[in-house]
This record gives sequence, C-alpha cells and structure tokens, in this order.
Amino acid sequence: MSFAKLDDHCRGLSALDHALSILGTDEAVNMAPGGGESRAEAMATLSGMYHRQATDPKVRDWLEAAKAEDLDPEQEIAIGELERSYVNMTCLPSDFVERKMRTSMKSEQLWRKARPKGDWTSFQPALEEVVTMMREEAAMRAEVLGLAPYDALMEQFDPGNRTASINPVFAELKAFLVDFVPEALAVQEENLSRRPLKPLSGDYPVERQKALGLAMMQAVGFDMNHGSLSVSDHPFCGGVPSDVRMTTRYRTDEFLPALMGILHETGHGLYEQNLPKDWAHWPSGKARGMSIHESQSLFVEKQIGRNPTFWRFALPLVDDHLKEAWTMEDLLPHVHQVKRGKIRVDADEVTYPLHVILRYELEQELLSGAIETKDLPEAWDAKMQESLGISTLDDPQNGPMQDVHWPSGAFGYFPSYTLGALMAAQQWATILKTNPDVDAQIGSGDFDQVNAWRRDNIWSKASTASTPDILRNATGEALNPAWFIAHLKARYGK
Amino acid sequence: MSFAKLDDHCRGLSALDHALSILGTDEAVNMAPGGGESRAEAMATLSGMYHRQATDPKVRDWLEAAKAEDLDPEQEIAIGELERSYVNMTCLPSDFVERKMRTSMKSEQLWRKARPKGDWTSFQPALEEVVTMMREEAAMRAEVLGLAPYDALMEQFDPGNRTASINPVFAELKAFLVDFVPEALAVQEENLSRRPLKPLSGDYPVERQKALGLAMMQAVGFDMNHGSLSVSDHPFCGGVPSDVRMTTRYRTDEFLPALMGILHETGHGLYEQNLPKDWAHWPSGKARGMSIHESQSLFVEKQIGRNPTFWRFALPLVDDHLKEAWTMEDLLPHVHQVKRGKIRVDADEVTYPLHVILRYELEQELLSGAIETKDLPEAWDAKMQESLGISTLDDPQNGPMQDVHWPSGAFGYFPSYTLGALMAAQQWATILKTNPDVDAQIGSGDFDQVNAWRRDNIWSKASTASTPDILRNATGEALNPAWFIAHLKARYGK
Repeated sequence: MSFAKLDDHCRGLSALDHALSILGTDEAVNMAPGGGESRAEAMATLSGMYHRQATDPKVRDWLEAAKAEDLDPEQEIAIGELERSYVNMTCLPSDFVERKMRTSMKSEQLWRKARPKGDWTSFQPALEEVVTMMREEAAMRAEVLGLAPYDALMEQFDPGNRTASINPVFAELKAFLVDFVPEALAVQEENLSRRPLKPLSGDYPVERQKALGLAMMQAVGFDMNHGSLSVSDHPFCGGVPSDVRMTTRYRTDEFLPALMGILHETGHGLYEQNLPKDWAHWPSGKARGMSIHESQSLFVEKQIGRNPTFWRFALPLVDDHLKEAWTMEDLLPHVHQVKRGKIRVDADEVTYPLHVILRYELEQELLSGAIETKDLPEAWDAKMQESLGISTLDDPQNGPMQDVHWPSGAFGYFPSYTLGALMAAQQWATILKTNPDVDAQIGSGDFDQVNAWRRDNIWSKASTASTPDILRNATGEALNPAWFIAHLKARYGK
Repeated sequence: MSFAKLDDHCRGLSALDHALSILGTDEAVNMAPGGGESRAEAMATLSGMYHRQATDPKVRDWLEAAKAEDLDPEQEIAIGELERSYVNMTCLPSDFVERKMRTSMKSEQLWRKARPKGDWTSFQPALEEVVTMMREEAAMRAEVLGLAPYDALMEQFDPGNRTASINPVFAELKAFLVDFVPEALAVQEENLSRRPLKPLSGDYPVERQKALGLAMMQAVGFDMNHGSLSVSDHPFCGGVPSDVRMTTRYRTDEFLPALMGILHETGHGLYEQNLPKDWAHWPSGKARGMSIHESQSLFVEKQIGRNPTFWRFALPLVDDHLKEAWTMEDLLPHVHQVKRGKIRVDADEVTYPLHVILRYELEQELLSGAIETKDLPEAWDAKMQESLGISTLDDPQNGPMQDVHWPSGAFGYFPSYTLGALMAAQQWATILKTNPDVDAQIGSGDFDQVNAWRRDNIWSKASTASTPDILRNATGEALNPAWFIAHLKARYGK
C-alpha cells in the first residue's frame, strides 16, 4: 500500500530531522571547540541525505497511488501536506540548489567579516549575486506553483500567505505606527517626568536567574518532562517536540532581558510540545510555519509576559528568586520601554513592525528589479527616515548589513515576524471574547484556560490547514490589524 | 572511479555514525526524561538506514572494481578493511537480523525486570532463545568467514583474535591466578595488620571533584579542545574523535571511584582523539576493536593510574583540589585493594580476569552445546568455586544474571576485557625497554614520551592491521601473558 510506503518515507525523514535538530542544539550548547569541522561535515552529509530522500522521484509515484487509495480525512490531509512539501522541495533543479548553497554560503561568510567593519563596498557584490540568484529562484518557484514570485518564496515559510492580503494590512499598520510612535514616546516621556526610570541593575547570579526562568517557564505551561533550558550565545528554541531544547544567555547585571527571552522561547516550546503526537513524523503533524510559530512566542512574551496583569503574579516570583523587592511602578516602565533605534532585534513591540515592513518592501523591490543591490543603502535610509526618523546612511553596519537573512538567501521570511505579532493580538482578542476573566486568571498565575484555547485552536492543528486558514478557523476572521493596533493603543497610547 | 564512490559511501556512513554517537551521548547526558520514546524511534530508524546503506549490494561491485584500480598502499588497506566490515555485516540474512533484534530486545527487557529479583526461572527461557539464536548466528558467520563458530563471533569485536591463541594464554593466566589471589590477599592482610586501612571518606563537593578530574585528564594528555567531561548514570566514553564525550558519576562521600573512572575513560578518549584524521570516515581510520580499546583505557587506569609512582605527581593535585592531605601510605592501599567478589564490574585487576575467563569458557560451552542454558547456575557456581572459592548457587542475580551481554546477544565480547589488560601490560613492558625512565617521567607528571610511543604504535595505526598484528608490530611479539603476570606479581605479590 502506497500510504504505508509514504509513512515509512516520513519516518526516515523525521529521524534525519531529529538528528539534525539535536546535532544543531548540541553544537550550540555542548560541542567541544574543535568539534566544528567534523560536525559541519556530518550535518552537511545528513542534510544531503535528507534532500535526496525527500526528493526521491518514487515519492511522486507513491503520492499519486496513495491518492487513489481509500483514505480517511486525516490521511488525506497528510498526503496533501506531504505533496505540498514535496513540490516545494523539488521545484528547483538540483544544480541550482547546489549553486545556491555555494553562493549564499560565500556571501554569508563575507557578511560575517564585513559587517563588524560596516564594509558595504566589499559586501555588495556578494549580496548582488544572492539577489540575482533569488530572482531566478522566485521565478522558478512561481512557475511551478502558479504564484507570483514573492508569494512563491513566502510559501516556503508560511503556506497560503500572499502579498495581496498582506499589503493592505501592512499599509494600514505602517500608517498607524508612523503617527503612533511619537505618541507613545510622548506618553512615556510624560510618565517618566513624573516618576524617573529606576535602573533594574544589580547583581543577579546566573543560578538564581536560571531558577527564576525555570519557575516562569513551568508556570506558563512548559513541560519539563519534555524539554530543558540551557545556555548558548544566541538564544533559540530547538530540539524536537518530545524534547524541546530552549536556551538563553545571562548577564549578571540585569535580569529582564534573559527573563523576557525565556518567555519568548517558551512560547515556541509550548507550540512544539503540544503538537499532535500521532502525526509527529508527517509534515501535517509539524508546526505550521514561521508566522504561526512567531505568533506563539510573541503571545507568551507580549500578550502574557508584558501584560501588566501578569506581573501581579510574576513580581513576587522575581523577588523570591532574586531577593529584591521591585514595585510594579518601577518595573513596568522597563517592560514597556519604547525606543527609536536602527536595530530590528533590539526593537520594542511598537517600533518592531516598522523595521519588518521596511524589509518586506525592500526585498520585493529587489526581487522585482525596481531597485538594485547598489541602491540599498539609500533606499534603506529613506525608509528609515520616513518610518522612524533615523538615518543609517553613514552606518551600513546597522542599516542593510544588520541581518543574516539576505546574505544567507532567506527572502520572504521577514514578514513572518510582524504577521506573528498581529496574529498573537488577534488570538488574544478572540480568547477575551469567550473568556473575559483571562486577565484575572493570568494575574493569579493560572494559565490553564488560555493554554486550553491555544491547544484546541492552534497547537493541535499543526499543519492541517494553511496559515491564513488556521488563523481564520481559530479567530473567526481573516488577518485583521485592528487587534494589534488596539493592543498597542491600550498599552502605549494616551 | 569506484574508489571515489566508496569514499562517498564511507562519508555517508560516517555521518550517520556521528549522529548516532552524539544522539547516544545526548540521551545519557542531556535528554529530557520524556524524550526517550521518540529518541529510540529516531535512533532505530537511523540504524536501519545505516544498515541498509552499509549492506547495499552496489558496495560489493564498487569494491571489486576498486581493487582493479591503481591504488596506493593506504587505499589498498582502506579497501581491505571496508570489505572485511562489509562481509561481517552482510553474512547474516536480513530476516535473521530482524529476528535477532526482536529476540535479544525481548530477552534484555525481561532481564532488566528479572535481575533485581534474581528470578532465574522466568529469565531462563528468554536466554535459551538467545543462545539458540547465537548458535545459528555463529554457524552462519563461520560458514561465510571460514572460521570456527566462536572465532567468527569474536571477529566482529577483534578482527584476528582466535581461540587457538587465546586458550593457552587464558589457561596459563587462570592457573597462575588461582594460586596468586590467595597470595595477594595474604600480603594485603599482613600490610593492613601493620597499618590499618584509613577510610577515604569525607565531603568532596562535585565541583571540586570535577576540577580535579579535568586537571588529571589534561595532565595525561586529553585535549579539551576536542572533548569534554559530563555526568551520566553509567560512565562511558562516547562522541566522535573530534569531540570525545566522557562522562562520570560522583559521590560526595568518596573521590577515588570517580577519579579512577575518569582515568579509565580518558584512556579510551586518548585513543579516539589520536586516530589519524585523513582516514576518519573509512573503517581503516577507526579504532581497531574492543580489546585494543580496552588496552588503552586500562593502560591509563592501571599502568599509569594505579602505578605508585603516578601518585607522587597525583597526590599533590588531589590535595590541592579536595583540600585534604593524604599520605601515600594511606592512599595506595585503596588504589591496590584486592577483594574476592561475585561481581565482575566491581572486581580489582587481580581477580577480574578470573571473572572473564569463566564467561569465556561458559559461552563457548553454551555455543557448542556442551552445556545448555538450564545448566548455567550450576556451571557458573562450579567455576566460581574453582577460581575464587565463592558460591553463587543461591544468588543467580549476582551469578549468571549479572551482565547485560548474554541477554542482549553479545557473545564473543567478554574476552576483550582481559585481552585488553594483557595487552596493556605488554605495551608497558615494551615502553620500559626503550624508555627506562618512564616511571620517573610519570612521577613528575610528564606523559609525553609514554604517549608518543602509544601514538606511534597504537593510536595512529587505527584499523590498518588485525588486532594481533597491531600488538605484534607494537611490541615485537605475540600476546604473551608473562608481562601481565609479572605486573601483578610486582604490584601485589610477596
């Protein structure tokens, strides 16, 4: 039976995926310094094995044959998702895939060297090669998928996301934020003039911060039987659903960055831990995509973790572990600090979407040929001026050179961050409609109902529908920026 | 070119091997408690993938074609070793391999339940099935390899080891030990009557013991750039040559067991770290086998670590880290304690070989049909009485039920332990001939020359010759029990 063959096929891919995830986590957390070369070779070889198995022509035959078999609805969805992923992986010729790997690896390596010096001149030709290649890739994907080129790229990260529906949403959001950022800053300034910011600095031993982080993770629902928390240079959430590996990094002179980072990664972890077990090795049983994933991490970080109510529960826990009695009035201004800046990853929830929309617009212009790579520093600067009133013209390191995405060939990925923020707000609003006590629950450290909603409507759905459909089924409407805008107004507005 | 195809083939297998090693280490050290089921499934699937790739019929064609190509001597050796490993892996029909996996898994699971209760009656039928299966396996391997059945089993663990050369060696050793154990015990008793044993107990925090262990590992040559030390329930040395993962376990009321365990695993680690890099992904570039591996761990534990001279260097390090001033006279009786006991893994270097020879004799009798599984409790007891004067008749848990080897279908493995001890003594004797100052070097913490000899004669040879040939090339003679016997006499005799 072809379905059974495909089940074996998925089991093989899932085992390789399991190995690659754990090897990746291990590399960041446990690997000896000199182990990198043979680790890189092993992982490249296993990735090649994965790709060869995933794109095996036999899979297409099995898919066709399986469709003719007597399948139950879950199996039909599983077959559909596997086919989607198969088409996405096979739509590029293998010589192009190899060329892409070489080109983007070279450009990423150059980026790592040139970025610290802000050396745009030597980086530009390498990025130009990537852009040329991405134009080719987008055209090829578009042809096979019957989509517009940029949509065909987004399709890899968020199936079903289309510029046609995102453009008006981002336009509305941008228009709102350009006015709202000054308003939020003015409100903040006024508050601080009445009560100046008390620095959150002190001496916070790593062990205490870790115990606090673990307590917080478990409180919001993370299952320590299926995951752990370690330290790495760049925090991430890796591993596998049955064993989610979260990492963070600590500074002993402040505790808020590590704590908020842990809450963020916990959101990713909860999604992975609560995916349906039965379909774990099929694409339909895996997390849907980047924007839904980001909606889950941002939900825990922003809807829960930066919710003033949350701190009624969290503050005593902080005091318990760190032995300092913070007041709500001193802590919240840090949790809600708004700041104009050049760097996306350092941005707060008010300014962050402007960084994303800038990249979303520019990468479409780069792909369509409306601008060329050499125009990027000016184009970037113009948009930064327009949206945040900041110039990056003399500082390419913190302008178009700041992210790894483009040099590594990831185009169509950036919108996921802000789509995640919008979806998180929309999910919260939906919860509030049926569970008006959610704030009180969170304030008392009770996350059962909020998690039950997310388990039923997001986590358990895995990849059984497209990104927009999962959102629509969960919230009863298409992506609607009004919820996020309302959320910002309530938290940061006049 | 077929050689190039085989090179790719080996690279693929090595990547899977890398993944399986790190996944295994990760499971013991870092895995979340609930991660076991999906880890087991992933590892089983990857092992299956490994086996399918390793036994691919194309490999035989490539091997034949490669032999006709113009190869340099290293390539010829590589091809020869690959063929050896290919033949060993393909000599069993795949339905038998599956049956073996099921049978031994069932019996091992039953063993884990029955052993703590010493429930021989319910365990016996499962072990009987394994024995029947191992007789079949030995016969099939013997047929393909043109070897005697038991030799064909040993061939998997130590290529070239044959009962014809081991039998007289073990007979001589056994005859010696049966008389020597009482002598060593009498010497010990006399010494202790003059100076009673001072307990090594105290309060030794894990962090200090770890720092001491790390200092000791590095002193004897372990490269921390290519390895690390963590904690696991059962100490082992895993990982890959570029990143050797050693583990130990600590008790805070004594330090010697962890320290000696670390020295033992360091011996395994040094071998792995110093294998030749160029052939790392070919069988000829990997560690030779179980007995040479054990000779390296025992060399560091016994020839170095239990050498009284070593403690001139080590004792100040212990005192530094643990803040207790031990004297040589109080410490050495612990390092050299001899004790008759039922349990192999708890045995000292004097009594240990008797445990191994007992198993070596019994497993041959089981395979040949000279005894049956049901006869084991009596046969075991008789041999324990004969060699150590201990009865296990009423205590099967600590008699024939004590080891995991037989229930899991590992027959022909036991002799490696004692062969390793003999080889380690023989290597030490060879070093002493050309480097008579070796004791003085070790006493001053200088391991360069002793390691240089091992690098040149053992580590760098990897799997370029059979086990007996590596020993012969390194020491100038075949396996000779006289060196081990002389070692025991010097350390424990009158």
